[in-house]
Amino acid sequence: MKAEIISIGTELLTGKVVNSNAAFISNELTSLGIDVCSQVTVGSYTQDIIASLKKSEERGELIILIGGLGPSEDDITKQTLSSYLETDLILHKETEERIITYHKNSELKMPENNQLQALILAGSTPLKNDTGIAVGMILTKGSHQYVLLPGPADEFRPMVKNYLKEELIKRFIDTQVFESRKLRFFGITEAELVERIGEDINKYEQVVVTINSCEEEVTVKINVRADTRKEAENYIDEIQMKVLNKLNSYFFGYGEKKLTDVVKDLLLERSLTITAAESLTGGAFMSAITSGESAGSIFEGGVVAYSEDKKHQVLNINQETIDEFGVVSKQCAVEMAENARRIFDADIGIGLTGVAGPGSLEGQIPGTVFIGLSYKGEDTNVQRFHFDYRRNKNRKLAVLNALDMVRHFILNLPTKNDAKCDKNL
Amino acid sequence: MKAEIISIGTELLTGKVVNSNAAFISNELTSLGIDVCSQVTVGSYTQDIIASLKKSEERGELIILIGGLGPSEDDITKQTLSSYLETDLILHKETEERIITYHKNSELKMPENNQLQALILAGSTPLKNDTGIAVGMILTKGSHQYVLLPGPADEFRPMVKNYLKEELIKRFIDTQVFESRKLRFFGITEAELVERIGEDINKYEQVVVTINSCEEEVTVKINVRADTRKEAENYIDEIQMKVLNKLNSYFFGYGEKKLTDVVKDLLLERSLTITAAESLTGGAFMSAITSGESAGSIFEGGVVAYSEDKKHQVLNINQETIDEFGVVSKQCAVEMAENARRIFDADIGIGLTGVAGPGSLEGQIPGTVFIGLSYKGEDTNVQRFHFDYRRNKNRKLAVLNALDMVRHFILNLPTKNDAKCDKNL
Repeated sequence: MKAEIISIGTELLTGKVVNSNAAFISNELTSLGIDVCSQVTVGSYTQDIIASLKKSEERGELIILIGGLGPSEDDITKQTLSSYLETDLILHKETEERIITYHKNSELKMPENNQLQALILAGSTPLKNDTGIAVGMILTKGSHQYVLLPGPADEFRPMVKNYLKEELIKRFIDTQVFESRKLRFFGITEAELVERIGEDINKYEQVVVTINSCEEEVTVKINVRADTRKEAENYIDEIQMKVLNKLNSYFFGYGEKKLTDVVKDLLLERSLTITAAESLTGGAFMSAITSGESAGSIFEGGVVAYSEDKKHQVLNINQETIDEFGVVSKQCAVEMAENARRIFDADIGIGLTGVAGPGSLEGQIPGTVFIGLSYKGEDTNVQRFHFDYRRNKNRKLAVLNALDMVRHFILNLPTKNDAKCDKNL
Repeated sequence: MKAEIISIGTELLTGKVVNSNAAFISNELTSLGIDVCSQVTVGSYTQDIIASLKKSEERGELIILIGGLGPSEDDITKQTLSSYLETDLILHKETEERIITYHKNSELKMPENNQLQALILAGSTPLKNDTGIAVGMILTKGSHQYVLLPGPADEFRPMVKNYLKEELIKRFIDTQVFESRKLRFFGITEAELVERIGEDINKYEQVVVTINSCEEEVTVKINVRADTRKEAENYIDEIQMKVLNKLNSYFFGYGEKKLTDVVKDLLLERSLTITAAESLTGGAFMSAITSGESAGSIFEGGVVAYSEDKKHQVLNINQETIDEFGVVSKQCAVEMAENARRIFDADIGIGLTGVAGPGSLEGQIPGTVFIGLSYKGEDTNVQRFHFDYRRNKNRKLAVLNALDMVRHFILNLPTKNDAKCDKNL
């Protein structure tokens, strides 16, 4: 099955808006085993849309049109397709009622042309819009399927995820079930990961594995088609086992939950509180910890001690430690973690010190970072890292590695045997 | 002049990469007064590229091809265009030398097929690549101009900005000069801004004004074509004056410099140090302050006091203040700012307290935020804000408004008369 994507909107052609919808749906279609042949973006002009439709029909069977379903004058996608396919637009009662209710609840005045948004192509199946007004739809005509979707990303994405995918599976993958699972990794690059598991995952015919990376986390999504749900899950379990056999120490969770959230939930579940003394990260670790709703249950406060003086005066780091080992040292990271934990009376104390860059500090090159983890009644754990030469990347990696140290500590996992982490300080 | 953009790459069709290049160049072309008619994305297949070329030639004169200039087997853009236009590929000596030097300096082995990247279409003008190997080019053939650009964004963007634009201006806008200026605003939404200045900016024929917003900042870019540089600048000055007449209190700078950087540079220039006591923002304000290279000159440290206990114990907020007014109060923000300034011995102290949400706190609704600014020997300034119901948006807006308060304080500007800022506490 081949798909063609047509995005409609002047704001895309002037570069005001980046077309992230096209990437989003392409990714979803690819995971269903549907090939995307081309993506086209045109303005809201009848003749341009029709020219694209003609071209796309030559190449693919599934034609996806995005945008132009709103109530404005230049929203002409439905009308254009209606006259092009010689198919009437008819009122979809359920959507009309939803629009009326929506305006009643929000005390907004309903514009006269708003009924337009409740029109669907005769014979099409409507796709629900849980986050907006415009209804989507899918229509079979001849050998082609036409899909119409709204342009705003916050309406587009849920409609694709929750309704379109299901409809496509029902129509084209109907004799089979479709299952997928996303595994999340930290501490390994996408390229390294591909190199280490590539051979294991490329030999199944009914499996598509998509690997992506975003903000230092790498995801492996296993997409399987099979005759039964049980069979699909067996495939997924088998592949997951092969992947984790090689990469278990980097694996931290499933789905859309990022490392920060995994660690915050672990702290919540175990009723542990955390604090930090931050130098190079300047508050970014605590900002991550407090980003979620229940921050008050795991965090009471912490300190940013950026200068040498304040490390000594406010955080009570021994002047002898600083004089003998420097602030970029294992010893300083240990004291920072321990003192923060005492001052803020927390279960876990994190100390972050290092050279963010671009310059060196105390003869240490940018990217040299020490992270200490103190827990009541136990020896303080400390690790040395060598990251990158870029300041902001170093700060980000320091925060994420500190979070990962917390995860390893809580779950009692062995420290990662990672080239970047040098345990012989 | 009409332009067509063809992006080439399988990673775009699988949704692995979002096509931000298309938006970037469309924005640049629009600001030059060149209309983009369509954007197409195809895979690295000769017949697909040729089909797109044919279609694009029907619609536009300027055909821009992005991607497929590398040394891999599926990099076929140059070769395809060469055979399609019946134009030879010839070796560009300067690029070849640059590739050899590049590999010598980096101690990398030069791959055999790397000379491929030094080939250009006969008769084309090469476009320099300052951040990579592949050379770009522009070729006139019949009534069309063909532009070839590399796909990686960090090579693509500088090439467009520094070389392609100049070449296009020289070729098509050559009798006129082209000037532009970007103004940056904070504290106003894009929609409000358009409403307030729309009439003033839409009546000049040789002026294109593009308005955008990103991360709570709004930019107004004034693009002018004129006979002389002086005339262009006069236009820009005139429009800027009209815009600033209405929006001066929101204006904070020019070009690509964001509010955070403007404030950090102001602190550096005036040799002022800053500290903060943060509650709802959890360290995000200090993280912003320390994001730049010279952080050590303006910041020594600060404290995150998230819980009521730690506000009292670590930050010495009077228990009476908390009992009488609560932690979400003008009085608490004032004490936080003042105590942080004293503890960390800084010129300016910022206190941030409020309700990030989603729940209420002390009977105050989410989005209620108090920001205090203390300066030695002066009365502490405090402002109350009502932002949003979303936690992360509230945290972000609190940080940016605190930065904006610092800017207003340093430049001795009147406090903004903003609906969102309620001075009658």
